[in-house]
Order: sequence, then structure tokens, then C-alpha cells
Amino acid sequence: MDQPQIGVVGMAVMGKNLALNIESRGYTVAIYNRTASKTEKVMQDHSEKKLVPAYSIEEFVNSLEKPRRIMMMVKAGKPTDAVIAELLPLLDKGDVLIDGGNTNFEDTMRRNKELDESGINFIGTGVSGGELGALQGPSMMPGGQKEAYDLVAPIFEQISAKAKDGDPCVTYIGPNGAGHYVKMVHNGIEYGDEQLIDESYDLMRKLLGLPVKEIADIFADWNQGELDSYLIDITADILTRTDDLGSDKPIVDLIMDKGGNKGTGKWSSQNALELGVPQSLITESVYARYISVLKDERVAASKVLAGPEKKIDVDKDEVIEKIRRALYFSKIMSYAQGFEQMRVASENYDWNLNFGEIAKIWRAGCIIRAQFLQNITDAFDKNPELNNLLMDSYFQEIAAKYQEAVRDVVALAVKAGIPVPALSAAVAYYDSYRSAVLPANLLQAQRDYFGAHTYERVDREGIYHFPWYEEQ
Amino acid sequence: MDQPQIGVVGMAVMGKNLALNIESRGYTVAIYNRTASKTEKVMQDHSEKKLVPAYSIEEFVNSLEKPRRIMMMVKAGKPTDAVIAELLPLLDKGDVLIDGGNTNFEDTMRRNKELDESGINFIGTGVSGGELGALQGPSMMPGGQKEAYDLVAPIFEQISAKAKDGDPCVTYIGPNGAGHYVKMVHNGIEYGDEQLIDESYDLMRKLLGLPVKEIADIFADWNQGELDSYLIDITADILTRTDDLGSDKPIVDLIMDKGGNKGTGKWSSQNALELGVPQSLITESVYARYISVLKDERVAASKVLAGPEKKIDVDKDEVIEKIRRALYFSKIMSYAQGFEQMRVASENYDWNLNFGEIAKIWRAGCIIRAQFLQNITDAFDKNPELNNLLMDSYFQEIAAKYQEAVRDVVALAVKAGIPVPALSAAVAYYDSYRSAVLPANLLQAQRDYFGAHTYERVDREGIYHFPWYEEQ
Repeated sequence: MDQPQIGVVGMAVMGKNLALNIESRGYTVAIYNRTASKTEKVMQDHSEKKLVPAYSIEEFVNSLEKPRRIMMMVKAGKPTDAVIAELLPLLDKGDVLIDGGNTNFEDTMRRNKELDESGINFIGTGVSGGELGALQGPSMMPGGQKEAYDLVAPIFEQISAKAKDGDPCVTYIGPNGAGHYVKMVHNGIEYGDEQLIDESYDLMRKLLGLPVKEIADIFADWNQGELDSYLIDITADILTRTDDLGSDKPIVDLIMDKGGNKGTGKWSSQNALELGVPQSLITESVYARYISVLKDERVAASKVLAGPEKKIDVDKDEVIEKIRRALYFSKIMSYAQGFEQMRVASENYDWNLNFGEIAKIWRAGCIIRAQFLQNITDAFDKNPELNNLLMDSYFQEIAAKYQEAVRDVVALAVKAGIPVPALSAAVAYYDSYRSAVLPANLLQAQRDYFGAHTYERVDREGIYHFPWYEEQ
Repeated sequence: MDQPQIGVVGMAVMGKNLALNIESRGYTVAIYNRTASKTEKVMQDHSEKKLVPAYSIEEFVNSLEKPRRIMMMVKAGKPTDAVIAELLPLLDKGDVLIDGGNTNFEDTMRRNKELDESGINFIGTGVSGGELGALQGPSMMPGGQKEAYDLVAPIFEQISAKAKDGDPCVTYIGPNGAGHYVKMVHNGIEYGDEQLIDESYDLMRKLLGLPVKEIADIFADWNQGELDSYLIDITADILTRTDDLGSDKPIVDLIMDKGGNKGTGKWSSQNALELGVPQSLITESVYARYISVLKDERVAASKVLAGPEKKIDVDKDEVIEKIRRALYFSKIMSYAQGFEQMRVASENYDWNLNFGEIAKIWRAGCIIRAQFLQNITDAFDKNPELNNLLMDSYFQEIAAKYQEAVRDVVALAVKAGIPVPALSAAVAYYDSYRSAVLPANLLQAQRDYFGAHTYERVDREGIYHFPWYEEQ
């Protein structure tokens, strides 16, 4: 066996699968876990593989080829800091430490800076695709020193997912926290995609009264067209499944409607608020999860809060197509907001992000993988300075063609009493963005009236305050 | 002259007006400002008042009656820390330091803890009502040690605004950061109120084509009914005003539609995201300001992004009344979310907030003062354990009566291409909260499918994972 070219710390499922993925490309991989039994288990299950177990951190570090490449797959937060503190005294200048956890980009920025002072390279990389992706090929979003990335690029390119054109779903994202930042926005976009699909499903059930199996077929059909994506695909599959514990009910009807979250969507929205980016669709998707958790309150409220009385008659096939259009339209709004957020972040944190490349590495491996991402890459190829996806002709045409459908669907849902927070946010965003004049002029007048906050004028330069309290 | 019973640091307009307010109640007030000329100016303008100027921080501190009461009216953030650092070595145990700035509640929690270790009491108080409020009577939201509040309560009760029933608009809010927290939520609610008024105005202009003066009359009329509030009142007044620089145009038409903000609405939304509270209406109001700032982008987009073609015919008077109802309905949703946020915060930070009292002290002095707040106080008087305003009968009845109107208004706006992010968020919140079943069951299935995140079931206890990838 060769001397290990890379080591992986953390033998939970993601770390183990990533180690196996790397090994499968011809590398020898050192593995280490704080609890030795986990390492032993991996060795028992994979005794034929070129894995080199280590049972102390010193043994692990000393086993590696130099400059060392160490990938940490441990819990984000304090556990990551603890592993870094253990490794640091054992490392040499020029070694590359990689954090593949779901880390907040601000932590990555801090760690990159601190380690850089000791001459240690630090890469924070998003890894998307779940357990299976880690094993077979994830989409990877690495940020850190460019020269450090070059040392791991051959491995990353081999282990990552491959798009249909064969391109690896990994690229150098940018300095310090850029990789984890882009992963965070990816996850926010994922929240939006899921919420839009869930609202579409809900409308087909509650407005059209369709059975679950029929909705499965509709999603399967949609997956053949411009909505072609992993999330639409698995939704179609999910809706065909029946109870694994014996009843003949669709499993979806037995699952509790309390949406969980691991915090990355929340971070994404909190950061958009910080940067001044109107990222409403993802935020509404986060809030939709929060309100879903209040199951007992909702059940109690459903008994006392009035809804619409009239039943709405609609043409089923027509409305299904309108929902499809509404979903695609709204997905475009969500990505327009997400890419806008990355654009502002790139300027704010000085990252020089390449948005076309980012869309490209999301085409395979990750949860939001979709045919649609190629259109985003194309838009940025045409115009790298594009400041909003809606200013690209492809997206403009879709929006023009589908805006009537999304308006009809939102109006129908609102009148029928079916909540569509994300679809509504999509329409509000589109109409706000294409409004040459918004009522923020009245807002500025109000703020100047009660707080002397001043305002600009449309007809001349300068800052003004109106004499509200003087005789006119 | 008596020895000063209280001192004010910071002679910008808020500090000066607050000092004059205190003095007007019979107190002698020491004043200090880092730049002496500001203090001198105050003394020149108010030479007859019982103000004692100090030109060094030592002189200022030594002039005060003990235990000392010192109110800081300086810039939030580092300037506040700098003043505290200067004061600290000069203070004695038991002295009370008060921060009346627009401070983030987390800073107040930190300072309260740090100063408490030196035996110094620290109160962070919200002060709402702008410059005029500071002078004539603001709404005040003090948090900190209860025994410290008791030392300043007589002064605060005298200087604060008085509700119609004579009650002072100040009460002890809770420990450490509670006061600044409640002020932050107050400001978030203010953003929501303003956005709802601005959307209503926008609909009357763009959907109904009404002239500004007529809209002024409509707001004045609304201010006679259940919408009676300071913000509706000033909106009516604003819309009657013409250009102060000579043209005969309404001033609102000359004000640039770029909404400013000082960050408290943003903090409020970021905190709601942190606490897991669905506070969508305030957040949409923050985002509405952000998108308004992109004036150049919007003007460019307005030329290329398609809107609805059909003109919508409506009955003017009927729609005006529907907009009024939609506005009141949505205001209730916004306050339901804001009070929900405070309820969760109270548990999370261990503050034991009294929500009826909070609504009570907002009845006068502050920007969101309104008749409507009495209904909130009444609801919490009836049931102090109320976990959402929508579970109170008064609000339930209004919601039942007005929900049809808000649905009609949102549907009309969406079809007409007029952005109504806050009104839409209100409807989505209401319909989500009264949904016994939300599509988060599908979401949980998706999360379990791609990430093995597990789910609960509706028919039995426990945590489950579906065998998605096994043969069925």
C-alpha cells in the first residue's frame, strides 16, 4: 500500500462514505475517529480497501504524505474547533486542513484567518448530496487559499459528481468562507424548491381534491419537462409509496406535518437581512417550516378560525398546468434572489464569485440538481456582469409567458383559503422588482414626519427634510 | 438649585430633549457632552432651566445625588461602550446607569451582566416617540434590575407619555435586555404598520387611480374608526401636503421611493428566525424596504418585465372599504406575530414579560400608538396565558368578518400586478395557522428521502425512517 495521500477525521456516515469514495479512485486513505470502535468497524466492513486506520491523532498525522491533506468530517461548531486544536501542534507549514462539515461561513472565515497565521492552509468546503452523494459523488463547494485548493483539486475532481457533459461538480469557489457561504445559499434555495413543490402538491390535494397517486403521476410527468430535477423526481416517487408499517395508506398521509430544519436556511435568511438583499422566498420557506411545527396550535386554531365559505369550481387540467407554470415561475424568482444574495456577498466579503461556475457545479450530485441550472450558467456566460437573473432574456421570456398563470394560482389559493406563502412571495417579488415606483416614497415621508429621518427627491440632488410642523 | 437628582450624557437632540423633559417635572439635571460646545449651546438656549452643565466626566459624576442616576443618550454600539468605560471607575456600588439608545438587546444583556459584577445597576430602556416624544413624553420600555428600576421609576413615570386614562406609558419590562428587546419588536411592528399603510395607499393610486388628495381624505376618514392611530393620522396629513420647494405637486410624488432603515426591523426579523417564530409580515416589510432601494434596477426592469395586460374594472367604494378591512385584518396578523415573538423570547431568555402591560404602554407616546392596542391589553387581561392573539374572541371575530375582504384585495392586487408582500404574508399566515394539516408532511418525506432525516408519524409515537431504497 502507498503512504496515505489524504486522511479523513470523523467516521460517522458522511466521513466514512467520503473516505470510501476517495479510496475508490485509487488513493490510500488514513482514517481516524475519536472513538476507536468506529474506526475498527469501518476496517472490519472494508478490510479489502486501501484504508489505513489510526488510533491516535499523532499516529494519524504522522502517517500522511506531505504536505498533508486532512479532511475533517465532524460536527460543525465546537467539535470542529476541538479537532483543529488537537491537530494544530502536529501540523507543518503548508499542510492543508479541510472542513467538509455544515459549517457557518463566519466560523470558516475566522478559522481560515487564525490558521493562516500559523502557515496552515484551511479549506472550508460545502458537500451536498447526502450520504449517497458522499459515497458516489457529491457536489463540492470549496473555499480557502487558492494554492491549497490546487493541492486537493485532483482528488476533489475525481470524487465529485459528474454532470451530463462529464464536467466534475466542483470548482474553486473563492477565499476563506466562500465555499461554506455558497453551500449555505444552496441550502436556502433547497428550502425554497421544497416549499414550492409542497405548496403545489397541497393545491392539487386541497383545491383540486386529487388522490395522492394521481399527484404522483403529475409530478412524474412534470419531471419530463423544464422542471426536470432531483426534487421533483423524488417527490413523484414518494407519492407512490404506501405505509411501510402495514396499512395501505400513502406514506405521506401518515407522516407528521412538522417540518424540521438544521439551520442553514435560517442562516441564509439572516445573512440576506444583514446584507440588505430581498430574499423573501427562502425566508417564507423557513417560516413555513416554523409554523408547521406548531401542530397543536394549528389543530386548535383550525376549529375556531373562519375560512372562505364558497367552494371554487375550476377546470382541473387547466389548473394543473397553471400550477406547473406557477411553480417554474416561482423557482426562477427564488434563484434570482439567491444569486442576487451571492452577488452582494461576493462584493461585501471580497470573494470574486463566478456565478456561472456555481450554477454549473450544482447540475449533479446535490439536492437542487436540475436541468434548469444550465440556463443560469448560460445567462452568466452571456453576461458575467448580470445583476439579476430576471434581466436575462431566457428568464424574462418565461416570466412573461407564465406570469398570468402564477397570478391565477395565487388568487385561487388565497380565495380558497389554502396557504401559499412562497408562491405569493414570488409574485410580490416580481411585481416589486418591475415597479418603477414603489410606495416607499410615502414611507420616507412617514419616517421624515415622525423621526426627521430626511429623504431624497426625484427631481433634484440632495437630502431634504420637510417642514411638517411649521405653518404652511 | 438642588443637587442634580439625575444626569444625562449626550446632548444630541434626543438627549437634550429628554433632559429638558425631566427638568420640566421639577428635577435638577446634570448634563454632559464629550464636545463641550454642545453643552454650552444647551445652556445658552435654556439658561433659565435647572440644568447643571459639566465639562469633564469627573465633574459630571461628582455633581450627582447618590445613588447616582445617569442616563446615556449616545450612539448605540461602540460609543456606548466607550462612555461606560469612562464612567465605570468613577461610579459607586448601587449607582444606576441607564442606556436610552437604540441598542441591540444582546449588547444590553452583556453590559448588564458585566456591570452587575462591579455592583453597578444597568438599565437598557427603549424610548419611542422621536424627538418630540423625548421632549413631551415618550413611551418607555426599561429593562434591568428591578430594584434599580424602582430608583428611577418616579422620574420615568413623570416624563413618559400618558394614555387617555392617565396611566403613564412606562412599566418595568423585565431583567437585563428585556426593555431593548421589546423596543426592537415595537420597531419591527412599526415597519409592518407602515408597509401595510403604504400598500393600501399604493392600491388606491394604482388600482383605483385615485388622486392623492382623495386618498388623504380616505385615511382621515379611516382614522375615525377602528384604525384610529398615529400612523394613519400622519399619513392623512402627509398626503395633503404640497411641495415645500415651490411646485404645486403633492410632496409624496417628489420624494424618492427608496426606503431607509436603522436596523431595528432587521434585528427583529433575524431574532425571529433565530427563535423559530414565523414572523413573516415584519420580514416582508424589511425586504420591501430593501427592494425599494434598488431604484435604478427597478426602473430598468420596469421596461422589460411583462405585467398583466387586462385592465380590471372594480367598484371604487366597495374596493376602498375592502382595502380598509384588509389593512385592519393584516395589522392583526402582524401583531399576532410580534406578540408571539415576545412570548417565545420571554421563555427563551427567562424574562417573564407581561404582554398586556406592554400593549398598554404603547397606547401613547410611541410611533405605533393606536386605539387598537387596548384590545390587545383586554385580550391578555382575559387570558394572561393566551399563546396567540388569534385565539382571542375579539380578534377571531374581526378575522372572520374581514377575511373575505383581504382575500379579494390580495387577489385583485396580484392579478393587477401591484406588489402587496405584506398583505399577502398576512393571508398566508392566517391560512397556515388555521390549517390542521400543512404539506410539511411531504417536506418531511423529502428530507427523509435524500438525507435520512427521519420523521414522526400521525398515528403512533416515535421517530421513523422509511426504507426508500429497499425493494418493497
